[in-house]
Amino acid sequence: MTRILPALAVAVTLSSFGSFTASADPLPSWVSSGTKDQIVEFVTAVTTPDSTDYVTPADRIAVFDNDGTLWAEQPVYFQFIFAMDRLAELAKQDPSILTTPTLQAAAKGDLETVLQGGHNALIEVVNASHSGISVEAFQAAVADWLDTARHPETNLPYDQMTYQPMVELLRYLRDEGFQTYIVSGGGLHFMRVFAEEAYGIPPEQILGTYANTTYEQVDGVPTVIKAPGIAFIDDKGGKPINIERTIGKRPILAGGNSDGDFAMMEWTSAGEGPRLGVLIHHTDAAREWAYDRESPIGKLVDGLDKGPGMGWVIVDMAQDWSRIYTGAN
Amino acid sequence: MTRILPALAVAVTLSSFGSFTASADPLPSWVSSGTKDQIVEFVTAVTTPDSTDYVTPADRIAVFDNDGTLWAEQPVYFQFIFAMDRLAELAKQDPSILTTPTLQAAAKGDLETVLQGGHNALIEVVNASHSGISVEAFQAAVADWLDTARHPETNLPYDQMTYQPMVELLRYLRDEGFQTYIVSGGGLHFMRVFAEEAYGIPPEQILGTYANTTYEQVDGVPTVIKAPGIAFIDDKGGKPINIERTIGKRPILAGGNSDGDFAMMEWTSAGEGPRLGVLIHHTDAAREWAYDRESPIGKLVDGLDKGPGMGWVIVDMAQDWSRIYTGAN
Repeated sequence: MTRILPALAVAVTLSSFGSFTASADPLPSWVSSGTKDQIVEFVTAVTTPDSTDYVTPADRIAVFDNDGTLWAEQPVYFQFIFAMDRLAELAKQDPSILTTPTLQAAAKGDLETVLQGGHNALIEVVNASHSGISVEAFQAAVADWLDTARHPETNLPYDQMTYQPMVELLRYLRDEGFQTYIVSGGGLHFMRVFAEEAYGIPPEQILGTYANTTYEQVDGVPTVIKAPGIAFIDDKGGKPINIERTIGKRPILAGGNSDGDFAMMEWTSAGEGPRLGVLIHHTDAAREWAYDRESPIGKLVDGLDKGPGMGWVIVDMAQDWSRIYTGAN
Repeated sequence: MTRILPALAVAVTLSSFGSFTASADPLPSWVSSGTKDQIVEFVTAVTTPDSTDYVTPADRIAVFDNDGTLWAEQPVYFQFIFAMDRLAELAKQDPSILTTPTLQAAAKGDLETVLQGGHNALIEVVNASHSGISVEAFQAAVADWLDTARHPETNLPYDQMTYQPMVELLRYLRDEGFQTYIVSGGGLHFMRVFAEEAYGIPPEQILGTYANTTYEQVDGVPTVIKAPGIAFIDDKGGKPINIERTIGKRPILAGGNSDGDFAMMEWTSAGEGPRLGVLIHHTDAAREWAYDRESPIGKLVDGLDKGPGMGWVIVDMAQDWSRIYTGAN
């Protein structure tokens, strides 16, 4: 009997663990509220085999914006801070690359002046700091920056300013058979450096804005090089276009926080059968930032006005989240 | 005891089935040869945990061209036959769309005249027949065509002119933990109609040439529309660019048959660690077609000249495959 008892013990342990897992709250950083209930009810409905809203796992596609939805985006998109830092470093070696007032301001870290130039100025700085380099070398530079750079207000590493409740939501969805994608206006190559570790999302499930790339022999080695010029802007109507092109299916769940996400969420909601939009409303000036209709970054008007009519969950960060950043309590 | 015996019988059956599966040949339509051995040895090496060539499942990326690699491509790419058929049908309703001699020839099914115009003529016909329609409506038209159209020489439905040995290879790779992708010069939306059923490859693992698409409200419904103009040609250097952009990893195995696949296979082979190129050489005039260096479709020069030096397996269709088409013995 001594050889059988350990096996029984293992069986009991596994069974206890299984029921513990099943009853544990998959979203511990979400305050109990109508918001949380609506999300859990949707997921339960589409994953319960005898539900009329059941969706087969292959069609459980969930897409999420990144900046302002999965991590913070103030005072400006974090990739842009990287771009300014990198431009300053490149200019140390060759100051002649700072050919315009915008680039000169950016290299000085003068964000205010750069932002006065609007989105075109942002693109100019990104272009100047992100091209003429292999994808591998670029991503190594991003990794180095993430290791050392700190956010000016929180003093956290940028990749610890991911939202803990959203990291939980992504994991919960995958545990329930969803495929989770990022669909962001941010740069594809930039996001791929941290998204797998931060969110559990692998490179092939990251969609973003991308520059031109070329295929070249560099010292006899076939290499993909980041070239000047933006090839595709993954924002507004570009988001559903990119999803259709890359995934080939209309998502059943879409999360976003700004009007740049509106088309993606609207297209998701317009599909047949159960659909859910999850709109993150930045309402927490104490723990994060509070902004919406008037913000130059993350402007949100259409989602607030039209989202509720499409059944979207509006997440009130101050009310609905017990914790904000993954990197701090 | 009567309640225990059936359980024992089931256990014995499952066990027998298990060992039968393990010892069965995963590539029954591949003749025993050095070619087959080389493929199986590569797969065994990268999937055996204590092998020095072991590759983690997440990095077991295999990419395959479609036309001439996974299905036939003579006398012309099958999508082009669809394009001519569709153009003829559209012209019945509105003959004024045939604005050029190329389009007039195409609508008459005069392939010889169209081919004299080279690749530009092909693109002109595809453009005229593939745009101004929602993705869903376009794909319904492709599905209808596949149901009824028959190849002029084999009389088979086009989607039964897939290569049985390659369907087996795709399944074998997936069973061994690979992710299998199509990376084709053919149209993304065209391939997605049949690739899941024909090859077991879902929409998000199909990369191809794509037209511009627009996001529009059509009668108040958010819709993605195929617009005029090619946005991206997934051929030659475009293939590694598209793989890097969409998958974000360098494959460890690449299969192709023409010089359009050379860059993708070269880039694959240039990666560190174990890599395999599988080049399909069309040598079988009796059961399929024989063509390479001089063919206007599927021209193959670089792969034959430089592939062996990179360790590629050159598949001799006449010698290495006991069966060609999935749809016929």
